[in-house]
Amino acid sequence: MGGDAGPDAVVPAALQALHLYPHLQLILVGNQTILDASLRKYHGVNCPRLEVLHASEIVAMDDKPSLALRNKKDSSMRVAINLVKEGKAQACVSSGNTGALMATAKFVLKTLPGIDRPAIMARFPTIKKNTLVRVLDLGANVDSTAKHLLQFALMGTVVAKTVGHVAKPSVGLLNIGEEEMKGNSLVQETTALLDHCPGIHYIGYVEGDDIFKGAADIVVCDGFVGNVMLKTTEGVLTMLSKYVKDAFMQNWLSKLAALLIMPIVKKIGKSLDPREYNGASLLGLNGIVVKSHGSANQKSFLSAIREAMEEVEHNVPSLLREEITELFHLQADTVIESAPQLA
Amino acid sequence: MGGDAGPDAVVPAALQALHLYPHLQLILVGNQTILDASLRKYHGVNCPRLEVLHASEIVAMDDKPSLALRNKKDSSMRVAINLVKEGKAQACVSSGNTGALMATAKFVLKTLPGIDRPAIMARFPTIKKNTLVRVLDLGANVDSTAKHLLQFALMGTVVAKTVGHVAKPSVGLLNIGEEEMKGNSLVQETTALLDHCPGIHYIGYVEGDDIFKGAADIVVCDGFVGNVMLKTTEGVLTMLSKYVKDAFMQNWLSKLAALLIMPIVKKIGKSLDPREYNGASLLGLNGIVVKSHGSANQKSFLSAIREAMEEVEHNVPSLLREEITELFHLQADTVIESAPQLA
Repeated sequence: MGGDAGPDAVVPAALQALHLYPHLQLILVGNQTILDASLRKYHGVNCPRLEVLHASEIVAMDDKPSLALRNKKDSSMRVAINLVKEGKAQACVSSGNTGALMATAKFVLKTLPGIDRPAIMARFPTIKKNTLVRVLDLGANVDSTAKHLLQFALMGTVVAKTVGHVAKPSVGLLNIGEEEMKGNSLVQETTALLDHCPGIHYIGYVEGDDIFKGAADIVVCDGFVGNVMLKTTEGVLTMLSKYVKDAFMQNWLSKLAALLIMPIVKKIGKSLDPREYNGASLLGLNGIVVKSHGSANQKSFLSAIREAMEEVEHNVPSLLREEITELFHLQADTVIESAPQLA
Repeated sequence: MGGDAGPDAVVPAALQALHLYPHLQLILVGNQTILDASLRKYHGVNCPRLEVLHASEIVAMDDKPSLALRNKKDSSMRVAINLVKEGKAQACVSSGNTGALMATAKFVLKTLPGIDRPAIMARFPTIKKNTLVRVLDLGANVDSTAKHLLQFALMGTVVAKTVGHVAKPSVGLLNIGEEEMKGNSLVQETTALLDHCPGIHYIGYVEGDDIFKGAADIVVCDGFVGNVMLKTTEGVLTMLSKYVKDAFMQNWLSKLAALLIMPIVKKIGKSLDPREYNGASLLGLNGIVVKSHGSANQKSFLSAIREAMEEVEHNVPSLLREEITELFHLQADTVIESAPQLA
């Protein structure tokens, strides 16, 4: 029920996914009447491997997460996450309110042992063709500590290795280059931890522009900084597309030029469109939850379903549980004892 | 001597500025031999209102600020800032190492009374035509407190009013929207301060994408976050221009299309090019220092000279001294006492 387009993105994407992946089974959770109507609209009535599960409430995009969690116990979001908890679904994909999704997922599924806080991770395109970068945390946490960032680095490493098929994923710590001391107290503490953690291929500091240069496979930061980075990226791209549209609509000559270069513009759009990489992972939970962008259309919601499927196929939570419990207890504890000047 | 292009950007820009502004006088500070050669190259020998002042050293882009400050006392940067201190110049413009420029300016000029830390402020384009947004701090400070951010808001307001000709500049506090608590502890403390400060037209929280929507005339943030935002913007634009270039160079048809739309692309580039808005202000010092981007060419270095000229014309440091000493002592102290839950 979530996202700007609601079932008009989710339902056709679900039908397409079922068509593409013969082993996939989907449960559409939401208002039965609306979903039935949508299934009729998109010719999905009686579609095999598709179930509809009624949920009487909807979490609005501007609902406060705490209130949504407390008051909307029959929301589509809550019911979908409950399915994961009960083992009736292996993953939940939602375009809904990110804060509410995170709060509900955390409350229902709980965090994995060894993980203090779940994180939001998404993929971004880079200048290097066919090379994506995974950035976390994009806003699940603020005022993170060095220990949290270390956990993020470990989680990112596991996902990049398995889902991302990167043999030895490099981890960069987001920092700034301008300041004398080279960063704030958080990054200084974190770099000391990462330097000593053998499970992580830590390559040191990266800056905001390095993210898009593909300087690291994984970039780790506090959720406040990560969210500003994410929203800045969206803001710049939105501004740019507005400028391009305005410039090409100016006169008949520019409109003609626009027609001519449309295939090229589309191709660039496809390489850069965040919707191509849609599907942010809520990592560190006892279950798989993928957040689709609120503006997702059919195609991009399909990407989010695919991301969830890959996490299911690799059994990411169980991998995280094994690797992190082991790595974290074996290594980080030694690190914490041996790291210099740790708060 | 600074920046990627060195005198090849600065010298022609200086000559152009002298031509455009008959009341302007410039002192080129740097290696006399190199500057003389450059003046010959750009037909600026014996140019009236232009002096060359020899400095034997150059701060490299990768010099550590503290070492540059301690060991390179005859660097072009240091000598130029000394001129401001001695009243022989009313402003200094440099493309050099930002950290070294800030450290040197702070050491030589000192901060204004009532200002604990200087900040770096720059202008960014927005979706609203002819509307720029000023963002500070872009990396002079990390681990800022709420009191520092309040000072940044006051400084931004003064500059937007005078240099920016905005009658009642609105101030937004950079925050994230995802997290339950709506931001980290710093923004929560800062919003309480800004809410009670009558000298500031505070409009509340803005997010990363709001910056480019022109939601506020001034956006205030800690320098770590601001620098990530700045570098992310640069990174996205660089990636995008690489994708565009690649797409248009693919075959003869795309090359033809590129030729046709070149004027439109150039126009868009001009609207968005950070070099158009080049010239970041080092605010809060007893003197005017403007940082030009390291990649500045002649045209963009000219923008930086113009920014410095406007700050001189409005006598920004003296305005800041008056308004901030007054506002800050009268208002902020009361605010600090009355603000709820202030750390």
